[in-house]
Amino acid sequence: MISKIGLVGCGTVGSGLLELLDKRADYIAGKYGVTFKLLFVTDAARGTAFSHDGLNPRALLEILKIGGSLDSISPEDVSCDPASLFEEAKPDIICEAAPTDYTTGEPGMSIIIAALSAGISVVTSSKGALSLDMAGLKVLAVSKRASLRFESSVMSGTPLISLARGPMAGCEISKAEGILNGTTNFILTKMEEGMDYAEALAEATRRGYAEADPTGDVEGFDAAVKVCILAAEFFGTPMRLEDVRRTGITGVTSEDIKRAAASGGRIKLVAGVKKEGGSVIGYVSPENVGLDNPLASVSGAANAVSITTDNLGVVTITGPGAGRIETAQGLLSDMLSIARGQL
Amino acid sequence: MISKIGLVGCGTVGSGLLELLDKRADYIAGKYGVTFKLLFVTDAARGTAFSHDGLNPRALLEILKIGGSLDSISPEDVSCDPASLFEEAKPDIICEAAPTDYTTGEPGMSIIIAALSAGISVVTSSKGALSLDMAGLKVLAVSKRASLRFESSVMSGTPLISLARGPMAGCEISKAEGILNGTTNFILTKMEEGMDYAEALAEATRRGYAEADPTGDVEGFDAAVKVCILAAEFFGTPMRLEDVRRTGITGVTSEDIKRAAASGGRIKLVAGVKKEGGSVIGYVSPENVGLDNPLASVSGAANAVSITTDNLGVVTITGPGAGRIETAQGLLSDMLSIARGQL
Repeated sequence: MISKIGLVGCGTVGSGLLELLDKRADYIAGKYGVTFKLLFVTDAARGTAFSHDGLNPRALLEILKIGGSLDSISPEDVSCDPASLFEEAKPDIICEAAPTDYTTGEPGMSIIIAALSAGISVVTSSKGALSLDMAGLKVLAVSKRASLRFESSVMSGTPLISLARGPMAGCEISKAEGILNGTTNFILTKMEEGMDYAEALAEATRRGYAEADPTGDVEGFDAAVKVCILAAEFFGTPMRLEDVRRTGITGVTSEDIKRAAASGGRIKLVAGVKKEGGSVIGYVSPENVGLDNPLASVSGAANAVSITTDNLGVVTITGPGAGRIETAQGLLSDMLSIARGQL
Repeated sequence: MISKIGLVGCGTVGSGLLELLDKRADYIAGKYGVTFKLLFVTDAARGTAFSHDGLNPRALLEILKIGGSLDSISPEDVSCDPASLFEEAKPDIICEAAPTDYTTGEPGMSIIIAALSAGISVVTSSKGALSLDMAGLKVLAVSKRASLRFESSVMSGTPLISLARGPMAGCEISKAEGILNGTTNFILTKMEEGMDYAEALAEATRRGYAEADPTGDVEGFDAAVKVCILAAEFFGTPMRLEDVRRTGITGVTSEDIKRAAASGGRIKLVAGVKKEGGSVIGYVSPENVGLDNPLASVSGAANAVSITTDNLGVVTITGPGAGRIETAQGLLSDMLSIARGQL
């Protein structure tokens, strides 16, 4: 079967998806019977390419590599306004991979709403839009008989959200807790190896894990936004960023790390959401995790989440927490789920 | 939507499924919109109950608890022959949970073939039938447009197989390796706590983890059968039990355990299947696993598998490896997948 797609946002992750669409097309067609036909790619900084006949991902990647404009290879004239573009192209799925703003949810929010309103299914990595109004977006999707999937928004492509939706169906979740930020986990790992906090942060920046302003990671905001997404997804509970009890790692000292090691544990920035009494609580804080806890074995930029359930006890999934291809894989698995009829 | 089901085999796991159907019916209807209507339960030792109007799982559990015959509460006369029973009841799904024989695959093999031949989808925990001829059973299922699912055959209900089928779709797997037998992992954990092999085995037997004849577990046969299932599922490669390179834990000494600990590791019975050169290799053997490996944190009767892929690197899932409710949950999630239209 052919699934028509459009890509909005073609930076790190979007170009990663183009790479997968290029390299994995035969594998996907052979294994799943799905062929993705890429109708358009649009990016605020890089222009728009559009063809009813389908674009070649490799040609697009070559243009992007030399810093060219996507407009230059577009066989068809197009509107720059996403809603008009969606209307003209009528894809089955919009893949939204633009950078995300935690305060406004934009540009993801507007793009997702425009697509769903037109009855087009959406896969997105927009932490901002999802943490701000997942419930509203889900209601819109259902009312338009469209799918909304967002595997890549938490743990990049490591399939936490799909795991709970499908393979663990029938289990009731009471808690989901883990390591949701790779940058801070990398810093804590380096501190175990002997660096102090400032050295470890500098190393994380040098490797591109931490941004110039590392506040979002080290103060736990990034993990907290993901906690909001998990609260909405697992418990149907809207949770605002300021509702998450949040402590970052800036106060963690080399002494804390050594004391944890001496007690047989490791300091991890643990982020979670759980039912307690009648309410749902979200939290992010550094904790001493024992070595029998699967979270303790998670080193470097990896992530892990333990899901506590009624029927299965605790199930833990561990995998990459970041990476352009890893995040693109999350978008790809969502696209395949929709193409294969799995809402 | 109503999904009509029939249960074949009502021992430990089958009665666990009845418990879930009893206790979780409202949750499942509310969350997934699915109501399971149990048309029949048949068990070689416990008789057969059948009703076109649907049976009450709680009433069946009470009969089983007092050792009564299921015949006694059957509102309808029935054939004892599964094929005739399937023909008469026409369920959407047969849930096969009879004990399994690794040599013949029976009685699962005959039951699965009878159901699929009648175009009825099957969920099964039959390690025997699946390891002997998964390919043949899959071909039969496809030819009859029926589903065949078997989450509970490996890692009980911890969703390894569904994880790879759905949420990790688009990834190509090159290796799957982990701890697939809870009994031996329990024994190795107890040896770390100071018991010698004989004491640890006795403790496993006392707790009901090990059978009177522990050969199947401690010599690695149970793990090897699961390796055959993973070879067929992940690589489409038929693998016979005797093709798996197999070493059990009977040769592991307390000295080995101590030496591993001194080197910063733990001895685990590692079972896996991987592509190497042009072929697929299956193996089971005790290995010294480093503490940064997620498998190292798996204690007691738990299981874990690390899947190595192209797009995501290594993803590890850790969870229960046995248990009647845990295994029944694997059957339930498969039933929900089929009812929700996910082949």
